Amino acid sequence: MSPKIVLHYLDQSRADRIIWLLEELGLDYELKTYKRGRDMVSPPELKRVHPLGKSPVLEVDGKKLIESGYIVDYVIRHFDNNKVLAADNEEDAEKISLALHHAEGSIMTPFIVALITTKIREGPFLARPLLNIVAGRVESSYAVPNINLQLDYLEQLLKDNGSNGLFVGEHLTGADIIYMFPLRIAKERNFLSIQRHPNILKYLETIQARDAYKRAETREREAGMSKI
Amino acid sequence: MSPKIVLHYLDQSRADRIIWLLEELGLDYELKTYKRGRDMVSPPELKRVHPLGKSPVLEVDGKKLIESGYIVDYVIRHFDNNKVLAADNEEDAEKISLALHHAEGSIMTPFIVALITTKIREGPFLARPLLNIVAGRVESSYAVPNINLQLDYLEQLLKDNGSNGLFVGEHLTGADIIYMFPLRIAKERNFLSIQRHPNILKYLETIQARDAYKRAETREREAGMSKI
Repeated sequence: MSPKIVLHYLDQSRADRIIWLLEELGLDYELKTYKRGRDMVSPPELKRVHPLGKSPVLEVDGKKLIESGYIVDYVIRHFDNNKVLAADNEEDAEKISLALHHAEGSIMTPFIVALITTKIREGPFLARPLLNIVAGRVESSYAVPNINLQLDYLEQLLKDNGSNGLFVGEHLTGADIIYMFPLRIAKERNFLSIQRHPNILKYLETIQARDAYKRAETREREAGMSKI
Repeated sequence: MSPKIVLHYLDQSRADRIIWLLEELGLDYELKTYKRGRDMVSPPELKRVHPLGKSPVLEVDGKKLIESGYIVDYVIRHFDNNKVLAADNEEDAEKISLALHHAEGSIMTPFIVALITTKIREGPFLARPLLNIVAGRVESSYAVPNINLQLDYLEQLLKDNGSNGLFVGEHLTGADIIYMFPLRIAKERNFLSIQRHPNILKYLETIQARDAYKRAETREREAGMSKI
């Protein structure tokens, strides 16, 4: 029997790679959507879904899964019956497992700090010269060097894996699913350049051309959801 | 044949739970230590170990593993021959897997932001009234509520698991290993209270009383390493 899947999707959140994952595997799912409150805060309705109140939450036969890396791993382990995304060998499996930890465990933190410094810069007008100095110091000492370090590493991973434009092995895997979110953000925030990140830019094009990715985008749009 | 293990340990870093993990499993390992530079920055020597230049890095037969959640998972999958830390059943295995993603994927970010706001407060003396306002806003709108949310969730997990003071099942698991770091930090930064977090405080006592934990502390001390 196919599982009953509900994706709890908060507008402008990391849920966009989970809807894409479900489309890649051709799974049926219900989409429940949530809008952010003032100051971009997650609404109280999401706390009633799961006490941490974050997005995505993936409900599978009533069991509520959280954490993007865990969700991607869980879904592929349990529902990738045709081995569409599964690793072809043990070495690839280890690379994918590392990617699932790495994307959320290390890459996202400097991006969130960069988001916070953007907010700091938007403070009271008269204080802005000083606020810009404070934000600039946090960016130059922590956020920007760490984002660049992570992007250089991902560029190298893609280069090492060869010409198919994907992160691990011969076909799409969970590594591609999980790295999409920070790399899309990196592009939108102008952290990518064609000189330094040709492989990352090619990867983004490769992904965005996929049918399943486009289907996910259509469904997001029809549900009134937008990407961060 | 036993694996050749080298733990690359940066002073005041997340490596302290990996040395504890190795002690719990009774594995032989070499300890290579690194001191932080000015402004607490990771030294260039660590970049020669791994391009991301972070700690911990665990070298296993020459293969370099990064990401705490992945390292804990890898070591238990490959070297827990006597099933000391391994899950007793499928349900526990899922809980442990989630914990390994959750600890680094969600809990650490607000702690790192709180560390950054502490740095912001230490800016030039004359600017401190405004710096305190900026830091206070980031703390009250993001860092503190998110830290409290995570701690309440972990308190509930421990309560739900019953009286043994551990996170999953009947014995110590990777979940206990991975949650130790943020919970120790939470105690040191005074985020814990006996009224709100009795189970977390009991867990910290339970862990710190373990022989393997004490052996790890002795070895850290003898190598001149200190905990963050």
